Amino acid sequence: MRCVTDSPHASALLGPLVSDGEASALFSDRAAVRALLDFEAALAGAEGRAGVIPAVAAEGIAAAAAKLRPDWDRLGEGSAASGHPVAALVAQLRDAAGPHAGFVHLGATAQDAVDTALVLRLAPLLRRFDRQLGDLVRRLATAAADHRRTVMAGRTRHQQAVPITLGLKLAGWLLPLARHRQRLAEMAPRVLVVQLGGAAGTLSGLGSKGVRVLEELGRGLGLGVPPMPWHVQRDGFAELAGWLSMVSGALGKIGTDLALLSQSEVAEASDGSVGSSSVMPQKSNPVRAETLVTLARANAGLLATMHHALVHDHERGGSAWSLEWLTLPQMASQTAAGLRLAGEAVSEMRFDAGRMRDNIDGCGRGLLAEAAAAALSEAMPRREAVALVRRASLEARAARVDLIDALRALTGVSVDWDSLEDAATWLGSSDEFVDRALAFARP
Amino acid sequence: MRCVTDSPHASALLGPLVSDGEASALFSDRAAVRALLDFEAALAGAEGRAGVIPAVAAEGIAAAAAKLRPDWDRLGEGSAASGHPVAALVAQLRDAAGPHAGFVHLGATAQDAVDTALVLRLAPLLRRFDRQLGDLVRRLATAAADHRRTVMAGRTRHQQAVPITLGLKLAGWLLPLARHRQRLAEMAPRVLVVQLGGAAGTLSGLGSKGVRVLEELGRGLGLGVPPMPWHVQRDGFAELAGWLSMVSGALGKIGTDLALLSQSEVAEASDGSVGSSSVMPQKSNPVRAETLVTLARANAGLLATMHHALVHDHERGGSAWSLEWLTLPQMASQTAAGLRLAGEAVSEMRFDAGRMRDNIDGCGRGLLAEAAAAALSEAMPRREAVALVRRASLEARAARVDLIDALRALTGVSVDWDSLEDAATWLGSSDEFVDRALAFARP
Amino acid sequence: MRCVTDSPHASALLGPLVSDGEASALFSDRAAVRALLDFEAALAGAEGRAGVIPAVAAEGIAAAAAKLRPDWDRLGEGSAASGHPVAALVAQLRDAAGPHAGFVHLGATAQDAVDTALVLRLAPLLRRFDRQLGDLVRRLATAAADHRRTVMAGRTRHQQAVPITLGLKLAGWLLPLARHRQRLAEMAPRVLVVQLGGAAGTLSGLGSKGVRVLEELGRGLGLGVPPMPWHVQRDGFAELAGWLSMVSGALGKIGTDLALLSQSEVAEASDGSVGSSSVMPQKSNPVRAETLVTLARANAGLLATMHHALVHDHERGGSAWSLEWLTLPQMASQTAAGLRLAGEAVSEMRFDAGRMRDNIDGCGRGLLAEAAAAALSEAMPRREAVALVRRASLEARAARVDLIDALRALTGVSVDWDSLEDAATWLGSSDEFVDRALAFARP
Amino acid sequence: MRCVTDSPHASALLGPLVSDGEASALFSDRAAVRALLDFEAALAGAEGRAGVIPAVAAEGIAAAAAKLRPDWDRLGEGSAASGHPVAALVAQLRDAAGPHAGFVHLGATAQDAVDTALVLRLAPLLRRFDRQLGDLVRRLATAAADHRRTVMAGRTRHQQAVPITLGLKLAGWLLPLARHRQRLAEMAPRVLVVQLGGAAGTLSGLGSKGVRVLEELGRGLGLGVPPMPWHVQRDGFAELAGWLSMVSGALGKIGTDLALLSQSEVAEASDGSVGSSSVMPQKSNPVRAETLVTLARANAGLLATMHHALVHDHERGGSAWSLEWLTLPQMASQTAAGLRLAGEAVSEMRFDAGRMRDNIDGCGRGLLAEAAAAALSEAMPRREAVALVRRASLEARAARVDLIDALRALTGVSVDWDSLEDAATWLGSSDEFVDRALAFARP
Repeated sequence: MRCVTDSPHASALLGPLVSDGEASALFSDRAAVRALLDFEAALAGAEGRAGVIPAVAAEGIAAAAAKLRPDWDRLGEGSAASGHPVAALVAQLRDAAGPHAGFVHLGATAQDAVDTALVLRLAPLLRRFDRQLGDLVRRLATAAADHRRTVMAGRTRHQQAVPITLGLKLAGWLLPLARHRQRLAEMAPRVLVVQLGGAAGTLSGLGSKGVRVLEELGRGLGLGVPPMPWHVQRDGFAELAGWLSMVSGALGKIGTDLALLSQSEVAEASDGSVGSSSVMPQKSNPVRAETLVTLARANAGLLATMHHALVHDHERGGSAWSLEWLTLPQMASQTAAGLRLAGEAVSEMRFDAGRMRDNIDGCGRGLLAEAAAAALSEAMPRREAVALVRRASLEARAARVDLIDALRALTGVSVDWDSLEDAATWLGSSDEFVDRALAFARP
Repeated sequence: MRCVTDSPHASALLGPLVSDGEASALFSDRAAVRALLDFEAALAGAEGRAGVIPAVAAEGIAAAAAKLRPDWDRLGEGSAASGHPVAALVAQLRDAAGPHAGFVHLGATAQDAVDTALVLRLAPLLRRFDRQLGDLVRRLATAAADHRRTVMAGRTRHQQAVPITLGLKLAGWLLPLARHRQRLAEMAPRVLVVQLGGAAGTLSGLGSKGVRVLEELGRGLGLGVPPMPWHVQRDGFAELAGWLSMVSGALGKIGTDLALLSQSEVAEASDGSVGSSSVMPQKSNPVRAETLVTLARANAGLLATMHHALVHDHERGGSAWSLEWLTLPQMASQTAAGLRLAGEAVSEMRFDAGRMRDNIDGCGRGLLAEAAAAALSEAMPRREAVALVRRASLEARAARVDLIDALRALTGVSVDWDSLEDAATWLGSSDEFVDRALAFARP
Repeated sequence: MRCVTDSPHASALLGPLVSDGEASALFSDRAAVRALLDFEAALAGAEGRAGVIPAVAAEGIAAAAAKLRPDWDRLGEGSAASGHPVAALVAQLRDAAGPHAGFVHLGATAQDAVDTALVLRLAPLLRRFDRQLGDLVRRLATAAADHRRTVMAGRTRHQQAVPITLGLKLAGWLLPLARHRQRLAEMAPRVLVVQLGGAAGTLSGLGSKGVRVLEELGRGLGLGVPPMPWHVQRDGFAELAGWLSMVSGALGKIGTDLALLSQSEVAEASDGSVGSSSVMPQKSNPVRAETLVTLARANAGLLATMHHALVHDHERGGSAWSLEWLTLPQMASQTAAGLRLAGEAVSEMRFDAGRMRDNIDGCGRGLLAEAAAAALSEAMPRREAVALVRRASLEARAARVDLIDALRALTGVSVDWDSLEDAATWLGSSDEFVDRALAFARP
Repeated sequence: MRCVTDSPHASALLGPLVSDGEASALFSDRAAVRALLDFEAALAGAEGRAGVIPAVAAEGIAAAAAKLRPDWDRLGEGSAASGHPVAALVAQLRDAAGPHAGFVHLGATAQDAVDTALVLRLAPLLRRFDRQLGDLVRRLATAAADHRRTVMAGRTRHQQAVPITLGLKLAGWLLPLARHRQRLAEMAPRVLVVQLGGAAGTLSGLGSKGVRVLEELGRGLGLGVPPMPWHVQRDGFAELAGWLSMVSGALGKIGTDLALLSQSEVAEASDGSVGSSSVMPQKSNPVRAETLVTLARANAGLLATMHHALVHDHERGGSAWSLEWLTLPQMASQTAAGLRLAGEAVSEMRFDAGRMRDNIDGCGRGLLAEAAAAALSEAMPRREAVALVRRASLEARAARVDLIDALRALTGVSVDWDSLEDAATWLGSSDEFVDRALAFARP
């Protein structure tokens, strides 16, 4: 279906690239209305159990909510008038509830419904994110273990620095993701809480039974119960936004590395994208990798907006609240898209160990400078050794010759150059770091 | 139609509040594909006129483009594979073009099509924005003229400061909008330019006829012709984004004032929103005013993202480019929503001049302190006068009595207190400022 | 001392307003160099204990570091050349270390020193933040308990909605702060970890003893030990930035409320600022409150930048890393300034309970509409009751008369209007919510 | 001098890298106070000429302002109390002005002084920016002309695409800078205007002479005169912020290209940075290039904050205003740093034309695929030619052999492969584009 929208997420053209079907479905109008009605039904149930409304009314409302087919046009008109669709939806539910109309939405305010309905949809999404992160971590752990002896150039500030292993690089990709699962476990109880406060957070419409209804509602919906309504305490959503952006950022770092490694002149990795150009078939465009970077930067920007929404006024304000609507679902959806793309990339990425070795040689093994200086230090003062290696490095780079050859020519000192020639002898603690990372990430 | 999307703009629930139908239509999939096909047809036409392809091929391609009914599923799959929908669309157009297939999209790259197709839709949108700004300026100018004698409290740092006129406040709303029209006129020629560069900006596929085709294409589409392709020179879009956010910000300032003036305790203005609450009928929620603030802040945040997209790599990069897709249409749509809402608010806003006077009196006419000090300065040294007024002000505020009464009691100095009592005598250059603003804004 | 800088934090003019002396001192050049030298000394100590360098060298280096007086000009030149000051500082330390020069900074890279030196200064700052938050929570808890019977208007969307208590409002201020202490406790172990990886994160310069040195270094500095170097795993800093912005946002919400309550027409609270204007002594500018909002928004914006810095390249990149330098210390300092100002505001804020009552009456007790509808519902169908109250509310607002009086006139139904007249009878669960909030926040 | 600050700009350690001495000096406390005093002196002068105050008072105040040595501690205390330093400075100036004390700052408000003082310092800065941009454009134009025949790989999505010239790339760097000069010329008159409105923008303290004084003040200070005070019309500063970020972004794009071209495996360019590593002398860290990216991203983030500051309240608000102080000078300083670094980079950058050719060959001349397809199309249907080239390209990439060799082997078709072998034959309109760019940029 073609949507009339500025949002690439909703686009038949671009959605398959930058969004995620399951997440988009959770944020669809249909799902939103369903969650709002679930809130109203559960509220009636809670009020029934608390003795605020008759049990038969609670049942009647739940039945009406279950089968309500909303009049979408009136919902949209309602939003334009009231700033949210709840009043119009409640009116329709009241019509459907017949004799129980007076007990619909009793004591609640629109924000109670909207906030809780969002939380109800975040709950399965966060569980899915956790599973997806777990999958990514497992795949990366396997790959890191597989590649713990695959030597490649470590690169800092865009330059070959010293040798590393591909396993170490992959371990560095997985650790943030493993920590994000930790953070999610800590955060979820702060986010997945019910909202119910009534007009100004006092539950004045429920007399002395407010807290009882609040607790019953939480139980009914499987959500936590806050100390008090959080209409203007948006730290939970701000924290969630930060988490979403951190996840996207961790995936953006993976994307950056994959894109850089897939450059024509480097060609050490592919992100498994099939994208090529009809005019330029030689190209292997890292579409997934680049899109991971896009999503990371898009979410980083939106995060600021979510934190501006912390500055709420009084007991409820319209601006800060609706600013969240423009932002948080989009962030969640972009995070979901990133996890989908990263899952594809990590499943299908390919590495070229031969090319990794060739690139080290092609750059004249300059990345052995540190090793050479260490070796020479055994035969001369360290500063002298470093100066010698520096001179050889500059000459080798200028003449585009091999550093070890240049060193051999510059000094008669007896060094076991042959053992040095293999970058694999200069990997420091790479292997132990891989072990430690895998141990940390193990569930 | 219910969209499956995280975007409130595309939502039947929230779209009527936070988006604008005409702008959304411009950014719909249908309009996007239409614009892409318009580009391909115009490109063939330009190449025909330049002698790069046969005239008959140009006509055949234009005819095929005009009646193409895209296979949406394949377009989406194409985006997922290639990072954009152009390759898939061009394939469909080639199928439709039969014998002319080989001349479709000749010498162009996907970004040529996508960028130009966006510019083609921005052109009518910018013209519409200019008209809407013109309307707003006119309405505000009329209102400013009408209210040039309506006295109200000037408020600084949330405190009544000195008297102003409502006309002056309205003049202050309109001036930025008038300047935004100026800026738009300066900016439009930099934004509304055709994109055509081929694979890496050299138009290598067009041999020696690249520039000729580029110029013909610009002419054909009614767009400007850049010195060279701007695949990675995104200053035009960054400037546009800044302009969109400035417009939204100017409307957000109006929204802030209207919301503050509509507070229960102030009640000097209404933004004309009909939104009220069924439980709290006494409320008159400034839905439009608050939404203007929301849109201003949302666009301010997105602006940063558009400027991050200036950091492009080499001759074309996938990340920075697709970051624009997630951002610029959303900003344009939010600006359109703001202009729609501001138009409604400015048409229907109401002011209560009686309440304005009452609020001055209700705060003890403390805002006459500056005037009182000036009056007293004629009878005593200025510092002494200021000290006396300060003492009277503090006492009056503490006792919640009238400042002029307090002053009368504190000093025997002969001052024409009666003339002072009218805030309207202390308006400084308000009237001249209104004149100057109206003169500036006159077309 | 006057600084030559664009930073208001460093300014003798503006620093006293927008920064915090202790935090600024932690981020001063002097403290930075001290922390870098502490890192170098501790590294030498760790390497000595691990048998990588002679114990005497470790001692010599520590002694040289302790008394080093840096040549600041050369440090600045070093930064300009190398992109960081470490190379120049290490050179000075080597000169000072005499015979031990060769053992200075052994196996480390500049980022090891810079990152660890930052963490060393964050440690005391986070402890201080926790204490300050604890103090704020305690003060707010006391105030909430004191004011649990102080009735005021609950305001939503800028309108009086239903009555609340000041205690409930204060409870809503403290809960996010209490949760931020929770978050800090969870986060700190992820942030306060040592950095040591050498050139590309392999600790290649330390042979087989890298992990041993890493552990010794963490122990020596009282910091945690990461699974592997985190040169390009910046989730800890991104999380910290999010936390800083959440704290600032929570304080910005308090500032917003205080500023709105201090408006001339509301006058229910003062933030205790002494700021007034010489020309307008009647004003009581909420300088602290407004500055809290400023700091919240400034940090929200910087947060996005910190998340862009997650997108690092390869084993170390210069851009993303130095982007943190421009951002994180500023955020920390602005958070410190906010906590200082909030501490002052919460200590010195004053509330005017009489004015709170007057403002309810002054708005015609419209905020009793919900209560009135409930009362009338006992004598007539709920929808009818609501309709009646709606009519009365609109009439009362238009005529600026009291809602209860309007209702009395409109209906002969027997309602105990007198008991209704007291807003304090319609507080719902306010009291229980205060209890629950206080219980949550109790340490 | 070591500053106690969190700002890297003010740091002796980092300032030489990320800031610019001249810009920092403009934003120093000393320059700020000097500009505030210039405002007060010019105001007195204007009021003298307008007959508002005696000529002798104007002269006395100017003399006192010229020699005032501020008491810095009291200024800082004043800011903490009033939210700005003006009240305290005016008090000191009054003390110094002796008998003329009563005429100091007459009719003005603090924001008049602070805003105008900022504009006074922006004026020379914008002129300097224009000169620096002009220099950059000239240098790049010369380089583009020099390198219009230097063939290199055009790279899109990180892949070699088709050949370009270095001249074309440099032309693409300079065009945005040339447009930024255009924009600056259009923008400057909107930014460089005097601020004078008094307490709430009415100039009530100046009776009927407000506009006259405003005009005299503008004339006296060499600044434009706005239609009315712009206390809450911040579009000028928002536009300026956008311009600063656009300039930084254009430089960040140059930095990105230089950094990518300086990668060990590419090695086609150096940004002239001297930075290398003592342990890894083979490295040539692109410190300048990376820092240009850092500054671009830092400014992009701050830009959002400046646009949030458009949402001002009423006649003056403390939050939005002080948010600018935390942001705009920092952006200006970072832009200045970028222009300084870009100037150094463009002066000292070096290119390696031999390496450019080698990298084309090293990637098997895959970037000739488009050319080969065009050549083959003369001997076979275009789609067949494209399919053949695609097959050859994939085989060549997999086997890492030369594309042209692979094509020769795959087809017996007679093509002038020899002429094709030179990438320089496939440059399309590169040369004309360079000409057009140089013509556009010529002053």
